[in-house]
Amino acid sequence: MALVVAKFGGTSLGGAERIRNVARRLISRKESGDDIVAVVSAMGDVTDELVELAREVSSDPPDREMDMLLATGEQVSIALLAMAIHDMGHEAISFTGTQVGIVTDPVHRKAKITEVKVDRVREALSTGRIVIVAGFQGATPDGQITTLGRGGSDTTAVAVAAGIGADVCEIYTDVDGVFTADPRIVPSARKIDSISYEEMLEMASSGAGVLQMRSVEFARNHGVVVHCRSSFTDSPGTIVKEADETMEQAIISGVTHDTSEAKITLRDVPDRPGVAAQVFTAMADANVNVDMIIQNVSEQETTDISFTVPKDDLGSANRALDDIVAKLGAREWSVDDSVAKVSLVGAGMRTHPGIAAQMFRTMAEVGVNIDMISTSPIRISCVVAADQVADAVRALHDVFGLGSDESGGEDEPTHGGGE
Amino acid sequence: MALVVAKFGGTSLGGAERIRNVARRLISRKESGDDIVAVVSAMGDVTDELVELAREVSSDPPDREMDMLLATGEQVSIALLAMAIHDMGHEAISFTGTQVGIVTDPVHRKAKITEVKVDRVREALSTGRIVIVAGFQGATPDGQITTLGRGGSDTTAVAVAAGIGADVCEIYTDVDGVFTADPRIVPSARKIDSISYEEMLEMASSGAGVLQMRSVEFARNHGVVVHCRSSFTDSPGTIVKEADETMEQAIISGVTHDTSEAKITLRDVPDRPGVAAQVFTAMADANVNVDMIIQNVSEQETTDISFTVPKDDLGSANRALDDIVAKLGAREWSVDDSVAKVSLVGAGMRTHPGIAAQMFRTMAEVGVNIDMISTSPIRISCVVAADQVADAVRALHDVFGLGSDESGGEDEPTHGGGE
Repeated sequence: MALVVAKFGGTSLGGAERIRNVARRLISRKESGDDIVAVVSAMGDVTDELVELAREVSSDPPDREMDMLLATGEQVSIALLAMAIHDMGHEAISFTGTQVGIVTDPVHRKAKITEVKVDRVREALSTGRIVIVAGFQGATPDGQITTLGRGGSDTTAVAVAAGIGADVCEIYTDVDGVFTADPRIVPSARKIDSISYEEMLEMASSGAGVLQMRSVEFARNHGVVVHCRSSFTDSPGTIVKEADETMEQAIISGVTHDTSEAKITLRDVPDRPGVAAQVFTAMADANVNVDMIIQNVSEQETTDISFTVPKDDLGSANRALDDIVAKLGAREWSVDDSVAKVSLVGAGMRTHPGIAAQMFRTMAEVGVNIDMISTSPIRISCVVAADQVADAVRALHDVFGLGSDESGGEDEPTHGGGE
Repeated sequence: MALVVAKFGGTSLGGAERIRNVARRLISRKESGDDIVAVVSAMGDVTDELVELAREVSSDPPDREMDMLLATGEQVSIALLAMAIHDMGHEAISFTGTQVGIVTDPVHRKAKITEVKVDRVREALSTGRIVIVAGFQGATPDGQITTLGRGGSDTTAVAVAAGIGADVCEIYTDVDGVFTADPRIVPSARKIDSISYEEMLEMASSGAGVLQMRSVEFARNHGVVVHCRSSFTDSPGTIVKEADETMEQAIISGVTHDTSEAKITLRDVPDRPGVAAQVFTAMADANVNVDMIIQNVSEQETTDISFTVPKDDLGSANRALDDIVAKLGAREWSVDDSVAKVSLVGAGMRTHPGIAAQMFRTMAEVGVNIDMISTSPIRISCVVAADQVADAVRALHDVFGLGSDESGGEDEPTHGGGE
């Protein structure tokens, strides 16, 4: 008998029949002897519809009221799922974030969980019921409704799992798990059976969309084992946990890519101390999430600064950049939104030199020009032209032997990269 | 400067433009110097859509989960209305029933308000904000979300008004106020400027749909002045308050009718003590709201019992009646759902004898047969054939001089009825 938290996203709950499918899955799990807490998102497109409603009445809705509005999405889901379970003759009880005690800071629309009170969950489990908790939402200590921002339901699930000491937090999605590359681009991409938190973090931060970085961080910090799996099959997915000797010992875990960012370049910026600080303080003040940064070494009095930001933040960036260019006396700024980022992630990089060289050589061989580079101890990311990213991903996946037809995936790239 | 509670129903909030209209109305009221608390229902058909969603996942949803589901309807409304007010440059803050402190008993789907905590409302008002409260919903002392049943938003408004000691509770609807009869049937029907709680209660209970009986009762018990008015105009509507000398001194306030009930007849019921108790205990146990009851005086060993129930309760009644007929050894039972009830309401009946006689005579003159009669000190109700009810209403409205062309409406019926 295990204590399991199971999170279902909006796609899994889109419509009555899917809700009933989730109910059946939870019941069969319960009947197998497990204690179950389900964490659910809003149904299908409900959140988008609510955002559209807000847009119709207000050009700039206050964050507090957006949270009030958006929190209804998950509340509808939990009620319907509880009803479906009752209809199948089993006991379930639903809780909103406020009710269950997901306590957050007061930063509306991107609140952070500060505490999870689990007395109600424990009590309901002890009476044999399936417990259903609204994801994505919480409440401040004085009862203001907050939402957790992108990936919030995953974070709720992990936080509840940590709070009740669950054996596993299962994240049900529309894919079978975490893959060595996006299977839509690389048909031979292979499902990863288990992966460490740190590699999963790098993959999530560099474009592997299946798990949100925040929830993986939360899981790592609280030692929650996450099982990312398909809501359409019973096959095991990908286990995310502390690195240990049972894990696959591949040097490279996967190739990720991300087309959601744009590149901004400031030209002829005076090359003096403090300039970069000014630029990126202005970006931070404008709530722009800067990812990669390149400042050219220069022997002139001016230099160029390039950086990438989410395309969604371009509007905020625009406003801040005009100010900054004028203030610094730079020549101009420009945006290139036809870029993409391709990344290699693997804990083995630490102990295997030459991976970067192999990566760059591979990309050169397929004619992909590298525009920017950034690295972490277990990741190398390159910005390339958006229309070349698929070629780059395929070539790298192949060279590093990540495909399902490769047996080891370990020797070749080491040899190739270690020269 | 007044302290005003203003309640807006679903029709007034059906769509972005209507929500913005309500926002404008609240703001203009606020700018005139009043402190405003708005109580709102779910938008347009939202509640019906939620009920349909529930039906799709469950044939018999648990009441607790229905409340969880339905409460989202008002939560959406309060958020959108607050956004609309902000968008117009004014400050507003929304509260769910849980947040504001509408404490109820734990009877899901028809909870009763046991306490209204108003600290939050007062505090928000003191900072100059327009306060928006979700109608229809509350929470038990341990935080379970409840709903108040039919007319719940009106009750919330009156309860909040009582709690904060508002000068008036304005109920905005799609009609101009309370009329002497339904204007769709009687074109000369006149809007009543003011009416006592007790008359309003009788009118509400006998078919005047504009205010719910529960909210009028709550208003009477707490001395809340209710102003029932149109959300489309600025004209004054009908004031409901304690009877006083400023009120119109009409003997008859209005003629109401109600086509929502059906008549059930039990035939050849053994005429012995306790039989009626058995029948109506069974109806109460089946949650059937019995309205009028007639038991014929009989010199035989058996008698007939007729009573009216809401058509909505017929399903529950059916199941109970088969049992009862068998248990009592009655001959049979039958349902007539083509009946209607027409009522005369007026505090002056107490001191003016002969109103009933005049009523029955008038109906006879227009060929309307009376099937059942019941009375209160200030109301006389008759069950008639449904297809004759309009004739009855028009004739009574005319004879008692209630129309807008009549000046007094007092003398004629007194003379007519006092013979």
